[in-house]
Amino acid sequence: MRILQCVPNFSEGRDPRFADQLRAVLEQFPVQVLDLSLDPDHNRADCTFLGAPDAVEECAAALAARAVELIDMRQQSGSHPRMGAVDVVPFVPIRGVTMEEAVEIARRFGRSFAERHGIPVFFYEEACTSEERRNLADVRRGEYEGMAAKLQAPDWAVDAGPQAFNERSGVTAVGARMPLIAFNVNLATDELAVAKAIASAVRHSSGGLRHVKAMGLEVAGTGVVQVSMNLVDYRRTPIHRALELVRIEAARYGVAVRECELVGMVPLEALGDVAGYYLQIPGFDAAKVIEYHLLPEDGEETAA
Amino acid sequence: MRILQCVPNFSEGRDPRFADQLRAVLEQFPVQVLDLSLDPDHNRADCTFLGAPDAVEECAAALAARAVELIDMRQQSGSHPRMGAVDVVPFVPIRGVTMEEAVEIARRFGRSFAERHGIPVFFYEEACTSEERRNLADVRRGEYEGMAAKLQAPDWAVDAGPQAFNERSGVTAVGARMPLIAFNVNLATDELAVAKAIASAVRHSSGGLRHVKAMGLEVAGTGVVQVSMNLVDYRRTPIHRALELVRIEAARYGVAVRECELVGMVPLEALGDVAGYYLQIPGFDAAKVIEYHLLPEDGEETAA
Repeated sequence: MRILQCVPNFSEGRDPRFADQLRAVLEQFPVQVLDLSLDPDHNRADCTFLGAPDAVEECAAALAARAVELIDMRQQSGSHPRMGAVDVVPFVPIRGVTMEEAVEIARRFGRSFAERHGIPVFFYEEACTSEERRNLADVRRGEYEGMAAKLQAPDWAVDAGPQAFNERSGVTAVGARMPLIAFNVNLATDELAVAKAIASAVRHSSGGLRHVKAMGLEVAGTGVVQVSMNLVDYRRTPIHRALELVRIEAARYGVAVRECELVGMVPLEALGDVAGYYLQIPGFDAAKVIEYHLLPEDGEETAA
Repeated sequence: MRILQCVPNFSEGRDPRFADQLRAVLEQFPVQVLDLSLDPDHNRADCTFLGAPDAVEECAAALAARAVELIDMRQQSGSHPRMGAVDVVPFVPIRGVTMEEAVEIARRFGRSFAERHGIPVFFYEEACTSEERRNLADVRRGEYEGMAAKLQAPDWAVDAGPQAFNERSGVTAVGARMPLIAFNVNLATDELAVAKAIASAVRHSSGGLRHVKAMGLEVAGTGVVQVSMNLVDYRRTPIHRALELVRIEAARYGVAVRECELVGMVPLEALGDVAGYYLQIPGFDAAKVIEYHLLPEDGEETAA
């Protein structure tokens, strides 16, 4: 079984008919939809679906075409950073697909999308063509309003499509990346400074673990603070290592971990790593799980 | 998706052609074979397969018929307790099947098997007709050699089939049970007495956890001892509770847990419970796992 995931983000989160339009497109392809949600405050739609690589690539192209048709960036505003109608299109290898293949698919999708719609495209994360474009935040810096100027800078030659700004649709980032694990640790304290200090200690950018992004924040209405983490490569920096490091740093303040949450989904492999660590089972692997053997075999397509 | 597992044990573990015969039967049904192994010392074959309930029931009947045909208990000996050619046939609900349905299937299978082959059958575990027959060890006490006498005792009226002993095929136990988790904890010591004391502390029969069976033993050639556990209801007594109790009791002797092993398979739900406990995620459930959404839907059959 070969499974690829795609998590496109579109810059429309207020019109429920937009979700209906996306759903109508998704139904035409043999893909499994894990999430489709509109955030009115962010003014952004999040869509997560998966299936065989060909089906996912074709479905992503159809979704993007519909979004280009419906969204006019000249009238768009929202609290989430964005630079285009089809803001980001990351492809994520889930099973039986290598990162190299995901990169190839992302770039092919990006070139085809750019030519079809006349929209400038940058490749990011594993699909990036230079290290300066690996981080989405760097690619998107300046946002929609700054893209016309950015496209004239010598460092920002497009990876696909026209070098000219598209006023109606903006600019699109297309990438390939590992499944991202969003893992939040709620602390038994209301001191925001403690959460911020712990986040700073565990995240890569300030000296922590290589594949952890983290910030400290207040959880509205709970009286507790949170270390909110993105684990961007769970194979190299697994969940348990991030959690136990938070625990160790929290001990410095006499603060305990109150509870944790996984936002979104987690690959079975990452869950197996957690079990292997805490149960002290060397080399635990997913084939130990009964359901693993019920997954469709190579060559079978998943049903819609 | 409705998935039932069956784990029949047959009293032949020395003739490799027996495994070939079982394999030939298994191939005729749309079931997934997780394990088929012969143990010459035990003189016993272990088979684990799963699939849609109807297919599993029919396949179990065909396997049992082949075993009845091939095994003559009058010439059988081995180190594992046994009372019949088809020694035990447990049905295990895995997904979308209730225990009540598994009991119904076990009893229907048992009655049909008993009538077809003229073999006395006892129902055990969740399929038992009285509490005295719940434990397989009680049902099998006396073994093959003692069954003729046992069948004349007033307490041992058969649940299906003739009340008379079948010399060639012996007696068969048919049951329904939860998936059993075989979990071993290796201790950083070579003192067998420590392993035995810990096993005694954690197992139900001597005051420990309700759904834990345990014994202390030496692991040949490793220089360490082991607490070998069977967790017979992982929902009520989850893996982490058994492990952490072993750890607590081991601390009394200054002994650490060296490593653990899962023998055989574990349901995804049990793995989710482990992650939920150690990661402190309240109400963690299997739908958080990406692969969960790739499992075949209700109504689809699994492929062979």
